[in-house]
Amino acid sequence: MSAGTGAPLAGGVHGPGHLRALTAVVLDTLESAARARGGPLPAGGPDEVARRTTALAAPVLPEEGIGAEAALVDLVRAVAEGAADPADPACVAHLHCPPLAVAAAAELAGAALNPSMDSWDQAPAAGVIEELTTAALARLVHPEAPAPDALITSGGTESNLVALLLARERVAPGPLRVVTGANAHHSVHRAAWMLGLPAPAVVACHDGRIDPAALDRTLAGLGGGPVLVVATAGTTDEGRIDPLPEIARIAERYGAELHVDAAYGGPLLFSERLAPRLAGLDRAVSVTLDLHKLGWQPVAAGVLAVADTALLAPLSLRADYLNADDDTEAGLPDLLGRSVRTTRRPDALKVAVTFRALGRRGLSELVEHCVRTAEEFGRAVDARPALRRRPGAIGISTVLFRPVVADALEAEAGDAVIAEVRRTLLMDGRAVLGRAVAEDGDGRHRLWLKATLLHPAAASADLLPLLDLVTEAADRAAAAEVGDSRSAAGGAGAPATERLSP
Amino acid sequence: MSAGTGAPLAGGVHGPGHLRALTAVVLDTLESAARARGGPLPAGGPDEVARRTTALAAPVLPEEGIGAEAALVDLVRAVAEGAADPADPACVAHLHCPPLAVAAAAELAGAALNPSMDSWDQAPAAGVIEELTTAALARLVHPEAPAPDALITSGGTESNLVALLLARERVAPGPLRVVTGANAHHSVHRAAWMLGLPAPAVVACHDGRIDPAALDRTLAGLGGGPVLVVATAGTTDEGRIDPLPEIARIAERYGAELHVDAAYGGPLLFSERLAPRLAGLDRAVSVTLDLHKLGWQPVAAGVLAVADTALLAPLSLRADYLNADDDTEAGLPDLLGRSVRTTRRPDALKVAVTFRALGRRGLSELVEHCVRTAEEFGRAVDARPALRRRPGAIGISTVLFRPVVADALEAEAGDAVIAEVRRTLLMDGRAVLGRAVAEDGDGRHRLWLKATLLHPAAASADLLPLLDLVTEAADRAAAAEVGDSRSAAGGAGAPATERLSP
Repeated sequence: MSAGTGAPLAGGVHGPGHLRALTAVVLDTLESAARARGGPLPAGGPDEVARRTTALAAPVLPEEGIGAEAALVDLVRAVAEGAADPADPACVAHLHCPPLAVAAAAELAGAALNPSMDSWDQAPAAGVIEELTTAALARLVHPEAPAPDALITSGGTESNLVALLLARERVAPGPLRVVTGANAHHSVHRAAWMLGLPAPAVVACHDGRIDPAALDRTLAGLGGGPVLVVATAGTTDEGRIDPLPEIARIAERYGAELHVDAAYGGPLLFSERLAPRLAGLDRAVSVTLDLHKLGWQPVAAGVLAVADTALLAPLSLRADYLNADDDTEAGLPDLLGRSVRTTRRPDALKVAVTFRALGRRGLSELVEHCVRTAEEFGRAVDARPALRRRPGAIGISTVLFRPVVADALEAEAGDAVIAEVRRTLLMDGRAVLGRAVAEDGDGRHRLWLKATLLHPAAASADLLPLLDLVTEAADRAAAAEVGDSRSAAGGAGAPATERLSP
Repeated sequence: MSAGTGAPLAGGVHGPGHLRALTAVVLDTLESAARARGGPLPAGGPDEVARRTTALAAPVLPEEGIGAEAALVDLVRAVAEGAADPADPACVAHLHCPPLAVAAAAELAGAALNPSMDSWDQAPAAGVIEELTTAALARLVHPEAPAPDALITSGGTESNLVALLLARERVAPGPLRVVTGANAHHSVHRAAWMLGLPAPAVVACHDGRIDPAALDRTLAGLGGGPVLVVATAGTTDEGRIDPLPEIARIAERYGAELHVDAAYGGPLLFSERLAPRLAGLDRAVSVTLDLHKLGWQPVAAGVLAVADTALLAPLSLRADYLNADDDTEAGLPDLLGRSVRTTRRPDALKVAVTFRALGRRGLSELVEHCVRTAEEFGRAVDARPALRRRPGAIGISTVLFRPVVADALEAEAGDAVIAEVRRTLLMDGRAVLGRAVAEDGDGRHRLWLKATLLHPAAASADLLPLLDLVTEAADRAAAAEVGDSRSAAGGAGAPATERLSP
């Protein structure tokens, strides 16, 4: 082949050689940038990060290129120095996991070969690996079903969208009504909107979980017609699991179908000890999983499991260039009905590599580690007089807590202190904590700091410094609030910039 | 941090060390597997590939893991030995590009850091890089617009979906009618279906392009109401570009808006010489681009460019855990309205690295190389008496051609020979050619072999062996067809398995 243009390719016999040189640059830069950052995220806040990133990255599209190595050095440095790195134990805001090295390494093979999962002649072996992987996931979710199946998606949002789409088509011309908890992820509402369905009916929750009696009343009030109940196994805000067996029973009584968004909680299935928390999951017609959450995959690694492969029929599609009838008859597998996307990444590859590398037992250990660490972290919060945990059970690996100084203030001012603590630690580059509004012991909803513990190796001892950071920042923020209200009472509001240095 | 579980992470200070060892395994395996494959795809067809892949990959989820290195060796070997590798000049079936090494290397950084593009505190710098990248793409597509914008998508299918969604919302309660050419990608129809819109009205094409007079008649026949016209710049089957200036004029006359699916053709904009072929593109309210086609990115690298950032308003969304009002007021950028997905990969990173590495001039050279190679390949076809090219212009870098032996048969038998040639070369592991039904010089539609030339370094000389392969396979397939019809005339159908060995 001609050497050509000086733009070496990743594939073929020579690609690995080119990649050896360039990935060495990437890894060296990642390493030095992680040291330079020296914490879970860069200090300085959005303006400072924008300034530093722009200095390294702009102009993105110059007239003349600067070459592969220079571009990698600049941009990998920019993205890594300016990362919120979930591999740091103090980065716990979201369902944003630190990926396993083995999964990230597998991604490199996918990127180099670039199989596209929409036809056999773009992904001969990758299609087989996807099939084996989705079969294993399908059996994990619906072990008793005769013909379960699963799709790879771009994430929980797409999984929920496809679940609602399939349900809509099953009952067409419908119209399908979606019924979901007040604790459901926003993607359920967004999917209904995109699909032209009526806005979901929202069922009240108690203690962060769907209230079965309220669900019963809602279904009774709809007065018949096709309904899809969407429950959650691992809520985004609190990690709570809806009472699936009761929900399944009630749904069945009304002839409604059940979809479960287990984007967060699904991997509890790997653990014999924890799987019982998901009892009832297999009664769902479809289940969302996200292995880029409690599965330590780089994004994307979404899954939609269905109880029966025939449920996927609405996705089947004929496009002569990808799956002409005579090609399918001649034995070329038809991959097109496996997604609402066309061109698709081989996301199953990294999942398969991870599964084979760790086995179900290894995955179980990582999941159990996170759950155990959250329990220990919760006890550490309980042991600190300056902090208090949201009353009740810990949801999977999510701990909600508040500095008690916030409780001494008026409700709104107290919540403002919580938000300010989070932002202060973000701006200082010291911690990435989340936030959530959740029910307190008195039944009132308050703002909490949220620690979503997905780090598969960090021990609770690694997380304790977070509690000191929160306590210190809260004392400062509360003092500033008090100062503010005194100034306000005196008629002169303190400038916002002074709020943290009273 | 605790050493923990023996499942090393990709991020942090120590991640690059783990990745050095594991990516070395990946690259060594990619190299040996490419040599073992020894061609554009494995020989033996689907059953043989499934057998070999399963032997290396199953069970995907064993009870006990086999370790990271062993899992990588097995599965990377499986996916690479069983790949249809677009870095091989004989892999030309689809808009399936060989990725640049620099882009694949950049993917490794994204996979290791795992920024998620739905909130600032998961992607501080990655969000800035995305913003700079989308701004550059937006200006490329709508250079004269005061406030153009662009989104990163998972591909052309999602871009078209979002384009139709935005159009639907602009005219809600509508209903929006979509009008598109018979040459449009199936994703336009699929998007309308998903969004609950009426099936698109289909406009007849002439020579693979929308016939403006037919468009005029269709729009007149709709009798008012909101309409989105969807044109194509680079059709999947033929690479043809619809007559955009005329279409824009006609749409405007009827008060209709215009979306252009330039998933394939968009990168012609990089070239001063070729950009005029896209004249009129900037009159579209939205434009689909796919940099995993003529942009040499690993999937995914989709783009939706819009003429004005205000057009994206329907995507805005509030989710307290990601973009609470007070956080946004305090200066935390809100990324949530930039996609219909929630968790999102940093696909802009590899695009930015590639753009900076090559510059607009470098990208232009690669695009021009593909267009020039297709013209040379077309001339090579023209020079062979045993082959003929579809009459008319070559579409971007797509060449349609047929062995003339197929013309000597009845129409259906001739088309069967074309399909058989493609499958034979696939099964033998010798070439990955595409297929397309397209208008012949006599106005009739016939099946053609399709070569989609996206290799940025292969010269036309590298592609000539394809023509020999096709000629030989066609002669055999045609002889078998003749044999078949003789047998059939004699009352005894030849077994299908013997068709290739008459």
